[in-house]
Amino acid sequence: MAKKIFIAAAPMQAAPYLCAMQILDGLLVSKATKEDLKIKVAQLNIEGKKTPHLAAILIGSNGASETYVGAKVKACSEIGYKSTLIRMEAEVSEHKLLEVIEDLNADLDIDGILVQLPLPKQISEENVINAIHPSKDVDGFHPVNVGKMVQGLDTFVPATPYGIMLMLEHYKINIKGMHAVVVGRSNIVGRPMSILLSNNTTPGNCTVTITHSHTHNIKKLCASADIIVAALGKPNFITADMVKEGAIVIDVGITRVADSSKKSGFALKGDVDFEAVAPKCSYITPVPGGVGPMTIAALMKNTFLACQQKN
Amino acid sequence: MAKKIFIAAAPMQAAPYLCAMQILDGLLVSKATKEDLKIKVAQLNIEGKKTPHLAAILIGSNGASETYVGAKVKACSEIGYKSTLIRMEAEVSEHKLLEVIEDLNADLDIDGILVQLPLPKQISEENVINAIHPSKDVDGFHPVNVGKMVQGLDTFVPATPYGIMLMLEHYKINIKGMHAVVVGRSNIVGRPMSILLSNNTTPGNCTVTITHSHTHNIKKLCASADIIVAALGKPNFITADMVKEGAIVIDVGITRVADSSKKSGFALKGDVDFEAVAPKCSYITPVPGGVGPMTIAALMKNTFLACQQKN
Repeated sequence: MAKKIFIAAAPMQAAPYLCAMQILDGLLVSKATKEDLKIKVAQLNIEGKKTPHLAAILIGSNGASETYVGAKVKACSEIGYKSTLIRMEAEVSEHKLLEVIEDLNADLDIDGILVQLPLPKQISEENVINAIHPSKDVDGFHPVNVGKMVQGLDTFVPATPYGIMLMLEHYKINIKGMHAVVVGRSNIVGRPMSILLSNNTTPGNCTVTITHSHTHNIKKLCASADIIVAALGKPNFITADMVKEGAIVIDVGITRVADSSKKSGFALKGDVDFEAVAPKCSYITPVPGGVGPMTIAALMKNTFLACQQKN
Repeated sequence: MAKKIFIAAAPMQAAPYLCAMQILDGLLVSKATKEDLKIKVAQLNIEGKKTPHLAAILIGSNGASETYVGAKVKACSEIGYKSTLIRMEAEVSEHKLLEVIEDLNADLDIDGILVQLPLPKQISEENVINAIHPSKDVDGFHPVNVGKMVQGLDTFVPATPYGIMLMLEHYKINIKGMHAVVVGRSNIVGRPMSILLSNNTTPGNCTVTITHSHTHNIKKLCASADIIVAALGKPNFITADMVKEGAIVIDVGITRVADSSKKSGFALKGDVDFEAVAPKCSYITPVPGGVGPMTIAALMKNTFLACQQKN
């Protein structure tokens, strides 16, 4: 998309200023992150050290889950990691799944373990997350890793929020002191995002408001935000009237919407009405090609980190 | 303090309404909580079950720490818990302290362990917190317990935020959908408070803004809040112009300020300019006699919970 010059009110400034809207290109940053990891893995090989190895467990045959796991395995291959894909049928028992996780925990060659969510109804997500050894929990969902993130300690940060932080870092966007509104409070995105943005880090140090289904004045809150992180999974929820001029908009939503014009029969829609919102923004992520690829890049970084703890 | 009738704008309503300011009496609620625990302990004794046992470690002789630990030990005695106070000199090594914690972890009679903060410089707070077994971490500072709190799972919630939630529950204040502004992002109060208020619980389900030293428009943010939680440790920081009519104000600050008129030589000051702010509030906590006693009551509840896991 071509850059567009327009007048916008700067965050934290009263006077209007010239502002160029910039796309936060997740594909580009993801590629750069993976290239960097590729060089590091090559170096590990030269030094005769261990190659990072990710194990992914996929249960059943949900279309979106297939796509996500496929992309993760492909990223491993591109970078030079080893990967193991374990498929289990949709009817698998929790007990059987926990046994497989236990084996992976004990396997010295496996650095990272991920179980693709969502899980079938007979399996407790909590039990599965708790079963993965924290040192192999590259998704960063284990309570001890969540706790460390809250306390600002080194840990595996959940891949989607981590990917967003990597993107903000890549574009050198100074967000300190900005007011961020996070829409959605999921354990996977909204909650960790609200913590990372408000932690005493760079990027970070934002004033952060976390909103959810019980929030009354969501439109007004968003309209006052310097940064909006939309992570609720409702296509086109964030409309132009909810975005102030010059805001940074991060779109985490990725919903499959029926679209007969597409070969696949569906289109991917974000939580942001991109066409209407983009011209008002200083920075915005597209869907697809924004947060999605960064999630995979962040997972790859976590897997490298998990391996490094052993090397 | 006598109740006062005045006109105030209700949270979430445009029209003014009659509002009576009410003191949230931490002493009263704390006493009720402790009475309840006392009955439960008596019942445990009748059933021949284990009596809750709290071990407190106090390092050095800081006046405030002495007071806090003294109050905790006294509360144990009032309720009928066993308590063990371990004093260590200010110069104690981290190694020695960790050894003592290890012994307490292994001691089957000890249910809860707390190490009074702050610690001397030669000791890492992180190492000490991580050394306490999560099942005995009644302060709720261990990463795994913090993570569980974030994920809304049963755990030990840090005593001060837990005490505040108990107080809101006691007074049956319906805070769902209110906008809470938390001033301060400490691991002990501000951060967990922001999480608890925004979790999908009752009380809870607030829209929450967390603020800190890099927040630009703190006065304006507070002035728009339905609930203010002041936890920054700056006496009289929250002034009347920062509080809207009808707001709920929770004062976590408790700073010792020199006062020659007092026998002790100091007075305890909250973060809120109580005299000026109180008349505008629907509810407010005093200092002392608000959050402080509730912190101890919450610790007692956590200790009971820790014991219950064994009984």
